[in-house]
Amino acid sequence: MSEVLELGKKAKKASLKLANVSTEIKNFALNAMADALIANNKEIIDANKKDLEEGERRKISKALMDRLLLDETRIEGMAKGLREVAFLKDPIGEVVKGWKLPNELEILQTRVPLGVIGLIYEARPNVTVDAAGLCVKAGNVVILRGGSVAINSNLVLTKIISEAATKAGLPENCIQSIETTDRAAVTELMRMHEYVDVLIPRGGASLIQSVVENSTVPVIKTGVGNCHIYADKAADLEMAKKIAINAKCQRPGVCNAAETLLVHKDIAKEFLPRILKGLQERNVEIFGCPVTKSIYSSVEEATELDWATEYLDLKIAVKVVESLEGAITHIQKYGTNHSEAIVTEDYSAAKRFTEEVDAAAVYVNASTRFTDGGEYGLGAEVGISTQKLHARGPMGLEALTSTKYVAYGEGQIRS
Amino acid sequence: MSEVLELGKKAKKASLKLANVSTEIKNFALNAMADALIANNKEIIDANKKDLEEGERRKISKALMDRLLLDETRIEGMAKGLREVAFLKDPIGEVVKGWKLPNELEILQTRVPLGVIGLIYEARPNVTVDAAGLCVKAGNVVILRGGSVAINSNLVLTKIISEAATKAGLPENCIQSIETTDRAAVTELMRMHEYVDVLIPRGGASLIQSVVENSTVPVIKTGVGNCHIYADKAADLEMAKKIAINAKCQRPGVCNAAETLLVHKDIAKEFLPRILKGLQERNVEIFGCPVTKSIYSSVEEATELDWATEYLDLKIAVKVVESLEGAITHIQKYGTNHSEAIVTEDYSAAKRFTEEVDAAAVYVNASTRFTDGGEYGLGAEVGISTQKLHARGPMGLEALTSTKYVAYGEGQIRS
Repeated sequence: MSEVLELGKKAKKASLKLANVSTEIKNFALNAMADALIANNKEIIDANKKDLEEGERRKISKALMDRLLLDETRIEGMAKGLREVAFLKDPIGEVVKGWKLPNELEILQTRVPLGVIGLIYEARPNVTVDAAGLCVKAGNVVILRGGSVAINSNLVLTKIISEAATKAGLPENCIQSIETTDRAAVTELMRMHEYVDVLIPRGGASLIQSVVENSTVPVIKTGVGNCHIYADKAADLEMAKKIAINAKCQRPGVCNAAETLLVHKDIAKEFLPRILKGLQERNVEIFGCPVTKSIYSSVEEATELDWATEYLDLKIAVKVVESLEGAITHIQKYGTNHSEAIVTEDYSAAKRFTEEVDAAAVYVNASTRFTDGGEYGLGAEVGISTQKLHARGPMGLEALTSTKYVAYGEGQIRS
Repeated sequence: MSEVLELGKKAKKASLKLANVSTEIKNFALNAMADALIANNKEIIDANKKDLEEGERRKISKALMDRLLLDETRIEGMAKGLREVAFLKDPIGEVVKGWKLPNELEILQTRVPLGVIGLIYEARPNVTVDAAGLCVKAGNVVILRGGSVAINSNLVLTKIISEAATKAGLPENCIQSIETTDRAAVTELMRMHEYVDVLIPRGGASLIQSVVENSTVPVIKTGVGNCHIYADKAADLEMAKKIAINAKCQRPGVCNAAETLLVHKDIAKEFLPRILKGLQERNVEIFGCPVTKSIYSSVEEATELDWATEYLDLKIAVKVVESLEGAITHIQKYGTNHSEAIVTEDYSAAKRFTEEVDAAAVYVNASTRFTDGGEYGLGAEVGISTQKLHARGPMGLEALTSTKYVAYGEGQIRS
């Protein structure tokens, strides 16, 4: 039996037990996992050093090296995260709805775990701990597959929290990591619908595309965000500038950062010089449409590709549109249904934009950067869904659950 | 451009319009579709005759011929179904949740359509109308692909209701059927995640398996039901007999019918002769485990395959189990997570069964036959989901929706 198949079978078995573990024990385990991270921080840092050395050898980018690094502060941060998850309300066992049929059969729709969650992610080793904590809290078993560059860190983290969880009373094998960095293992995980209930890929567009293309396990797509800020003709220009700069610059490497600025033609002459200068002062590289360039010449010319690109960097595409409708059409064509914002003082424009733009989150007069489980008050998040099935937008604990109907009768039969 | 790709592009375009059509117009259109079916019943019956003739030529089963048949009464039934859907509450526009962030940004989670739904189904042409009605009511565009044996009926039905819908004010191309019976068209539909938001296969296990294996569009698995009735040692035997007979015989060809009877060893000697005689009087063929056979010899011997088979027929597998745990383990191994029932007067046994059996619907002292949107009071249903993602159990209108966050600000940026 392959390693992954074995993991899957063990996970399925564990999931049937974990589904009925009490909130008390799950919370106790989460705190025990946090304690174990702190107690074993030397072992974690040692394993992480191996990854950093290998990363240097492989000449990975500085940004990636930073994301890979674990030190005492970051380990404490992960431990704190687990303790916070222990404080969140347990979604499992909630009676979502309940009613009696005319024949007195009592139906309760109750919240249950999804079962086995497969998580495929890239460099950051803290995801190992964050995701495991959220999955366990919602009664789910998790199979983790982190990026190969963090393999030593991930395996040590998994060993430490998994052992602590079992010792604290959770079933064995609730938290497992795939030990091989062989890519075939991912393919196998994606085809294991008999044992895995859902697959959540967290990472770049190519990873997510590959999972969507190849998985027979149901997938929740996350994260790719080609987000737009549309400055309407009725925009408060100072507000539009502030929001566009925040959405682009506050943290450019994340999915809810803005990638394209759309500007209504009626305000273009006044607004473009102000906003583009502001962006350039913050070292943002600008790719403008011909109209933009005719108004503010010191920008590069945008190509078709720019409209479709998620830069995740200090770069922005800028386009002047004829109308509100033009902005909506552009977003429908190039957007990834993540987060979209209009800046306007016009009631009807705001209403139309929120109704016609098809995205997980649509903002009026606010930055797209708010699309986040923490900001929304959902507690931690396991990712941001950009699909319509099951969960949409920031996914908190409830997104990691399903329901089951339980019906109490006294001999009812169907006639 | 292929026919299916063209359908997909048109559907996507229509979905952006249909999402914002008022309840009033949608209901008007549903009633107009019903009127059109009645007004054109001759055309429908003529097309259906072609299918029936071809069916006879192909020597399809009597049961299938019956499901294929459309007459005036059945057409009236479909029209009535559409009018009933018009009466159901429109789920779109509901504010599911809403709150303010500490910075006064107001977040509303609102219910929106899924977008484009692909439905793949087998013989019964009434599904064409039922599914189209439900999809439209929930603001979704639908691409239908019925069984090739009903192709003439399906195309005429689609034409009639689609024209009526457009005339009544819905966008063009809200209801489309794939016109070719070529299997490659289904494969294409399954890979069209750019234009189709969800695929719902309705039919036998092999159809559903094929969709799960090959689709890149998110899938809602429906229908395969290897359902069990477990007669516990504390069962009221008369009740257990009544429930088992109802679950097996009331309509054996459907997914919520029972396929295996599990009997606790302590009641086997008393119960088995009673229930098995009762089943045989109703022409049920019985496949028993060795213990069953030793108590009641006039049954066939069950093989491993019987435990895993969804007979959809007057056949049942019967197994004596050592304990409640033995019953649960058997169901975990062979069940398809559809509907499972325990018959018992023992409180703890009932509690344990409902908690540990992982299925869309778990019954205590009631027939599995109740798992149905109509019975549950959800109005019509588009199928019964046996997966955990998105929807589980009978799927009414709400299962055909997603949500979107709309946030109203006054210049909020993230710090």
